[in-house]
Amino acid sequence: MTQSTSLPATYAQMLSTVSEDAKLTMALKDVPMPTPKDDQVVVRIEATPINPSDHGVMFGWASMDKASSKGSGKNTVLSAPVSPAGMGVMKARISQDLPVGNEGAGTVVAAGKDAQGLMGKVVAVMGGGMYAQYRCVPAAMCMPLLPGHTARDGASSFVNPLTALSMVETMRMEGHNALVHTAAASNLGQMLNKICMADGVELVNIVRRQEQVDILKSLGAKHIVNSSSDSFMADLTDAIHATGATLAFDATGGGALADTILTAMEKAAARTPGAYSIYGSVKHKQVYIYGGLDTSPTVLNRSYGFAWGVGAWLLPNFLAKAGPEVGTRLRTRVAKELKTTFASHYTDEISLSEALNADIVARYNAKATGTKFLINPQLPL
Amino acid sequence: MTQSTSLPATYAQMLSTVSEDAKLTMALKDVPMPTPKDDQVVVRIEATPINPSDHGVMFGWASMDKASSKGSGKNTVLSAPVSPAGMGVMKARISQDLPVGNEGAGTVVAAGKDAQGLMGKVVAVMGGGMYAQYRCVPAAMCMPLLPGHTARDGASSFVNPLTALSMVETMRMEGHNALVHTAAASNLGQMLNKICMADGVELVNIVRRQEQVDILKSLGAKHIVNSSSDSFMADLTDAIHATGATLAFDATGGGALADTILTAMEKAAARTPGAYSIYGSVKHKQVYIYGGLDTSPTVLNRSYGFAWGVGAWLLPNFLAKAGPEVGTRLRTRVAKELKTTFASHYTDEISLSEALNADIVARYNAKATGTKFLINPQLPL
Repeated sequence: MTQSTSLPATYAQMLSTVSEDAKLTMALKDVPMPTPKDDQVVVRIEATPINPSDHGVMFGWASMDKASSKGSGKNTVLSAPVSPAGMGVMKARISQDLPVGNEGAGTVVAAGKDAQGLMGKVVAVMGGGMYAQYRCVPAAMCMPLLPGHTARDGASSFVNPLTALSMVETMRMEGHNALVHTAAASNLGQMLNKICMADGVELVNIVRRQEQVDILKSLGAKHIVNSSSDSFMADLTDAIHATGATLAFDATGGGALADTILTAMEKAAARTPGAYSIYGSVKHKQVYIYGGLDTSPTVLNRSYGFAWGVGAWLLPNFLAKAGPEVGTRLRTRVAKELKTTFASHYTDEISLSEALNADIVARYNAKATGTKFLINPQLPL
Repeated sequence: MTQSTSLPATYAQMLSTVSEDAKLTMALKDVPMPTPKDDQVVVRIEATPINPSDHGVMFGWASMDKASSKGSGKNTVLSAPVSPAGMGVMKARISQDLPVGNEGAGTVVAAGKDAQGLMGKVVAVMGGGMYAQYRCVPAAMCMPLLPGHTARDGASSFVNPLTALSMVETMRMEGHNALVHTAAASNLGQMLNKICMADGVELVNIVRRQEQVDILKSLGAKHIVNSSSDSFMADLTDAIHATGATLAFDATGGGALADTILTAMEKAAARTPGAYSIYGSVKHKQVYIYGGLDTSPTVLNRSYGFAWGVGAWLLPNFLAKAGPEVGTRLRTRVAKELKTTFASHYTDEISLSEALNADIVARYNAKATGTKFLINPQLPL
């Protein structure tokens, strides 16, 4: 084992806990600095993003509109009540201290004897529990950044880039030819546009506001439809007809959007001679829900025949199904295009303790497009 | 070409038409008797069932509560208004005369030179357009019944038997180990129970009334839950936990039932150590909607993690995907077990013209368990 400098004996780690008495608590805990095993490294986490995909583990089904924080610095504690329905859903995690933070990047400061090659390197990691000052992980989990790339550049190397790439992979694996994407002006949505343009894949972008239309236009997106427009249904059907998209990824999840997309796909299919049977259009039409920006129920009117599906889509499940070769191919592309296709932009950089402040939580939990928070665990608590 | 007796020059065929002026019309039309090609036969249809799966083509999205009939005998005409929403959904079929009736059975009365072997045989056919006095089909579409089996025995050889068998096939193909079925006391549901018992597959039956519980108990069903019971959710979760079912077939389609089943699957998974991750239970949970007894929207609360799907399931699509070998294997089993596993019981036998009488339509369109209509096209019009 080699280590660069003398490491502290303990470090701060953020944990989220749901207690028996229906309360969610998030706090920093001092945990002992581990000694890496032969194939492990200790990464000093220098940049770790707060993504919607982290919110699930952080907040679960707690009533975050009633959240409050107390204490300061490393003793800051965030808490929120949990409804009986929320407790039912979270049964399996009651009384467990769950580490939070899916991904991040930093410098390797200690390495086991088989992982010496990574010593001193800046690496990106998707290992969970990244909202911490340090993290001990298998060397195989680390993606070394190219020379000149910083931890901040690489903090979001996995969730958004691999999700965007995996959407296109899913499209190919399941026999579709084009995509529909909602909340399409998001960081992820912008990456997806760049990927689709580079790969020659047609993409229908659904956004809710004119400024989001403008963002995507400036990227060169061809098909952008605004769900706030009176002509939304007609515009969407036209774009789906033009592209032949029969697969959609929906970040919102709730309400009528999945239903609207399937309805538009069916209307578009009805325009194509031979695509229609008495049981509706023949080609399978699929909407994958990969986020929950809208937590209201998904409502399906089912007026689109008998060849459709709606389901949840989760990156780790997709990667497990696709296999390690696909995973390696996608990660290699991310490392190469980190500052172009997969560049992320952050509006706020905060410390681990600031991430527990109720006012700041309210901001990054608001899911408003345009805010994106980065935690730097090396900032003073 | 050989024919047994002199055939009439024309025969009556039932057609369903949606007109530009928003009206559904069903009537009998005289069509010329065809001469079978070398590989074709003419079947004199003697028994053809009215199934929920026929209602889609017959009635589409017309407002059947406002249906009326006029005329009598072969001039009986049924009509019903269609709402603007219904017209939107049925755009692709406007002004087309659609033949109705998925399946039926009868005697081969004429055969082309390569189909002589079927001459005089009683055969079952799933060919569409079976609500007719005669039907010319490729010999390959005919399933000869075993000696001693009548057209009435074989009238329902395809839709319900193949659907029930294909549910079990789908379960195996998609990696599930047990099934949930709704509207489970139906003709189809009873077949499914017999198949599952014979094949050693665990089946959770969901019914709505105590007399349906009794029907299934008398068949020997092990897991029966009554959705009208106060303990429905607990009973369903227990049954799913006991069987390990992660696949459901839902005949109702609308409302909360698909959501309830997924919720129960998730609760059951949470009882099993290791089955649960922070993203919910790991195993994919699927509900296939194969009918629309409840036409209200499907409402999904999505409180069951990220490994679930809801979609439409249609027998022809499944058979196309499974391939011809599977189809042949299933059909052979149906022919063998026609009077046992796949026996159908009818409450009413009617003529083609009676099937267009608004009062009778109201009865067979009511989808009440326990009524099952058979058309005998050879009865006087």
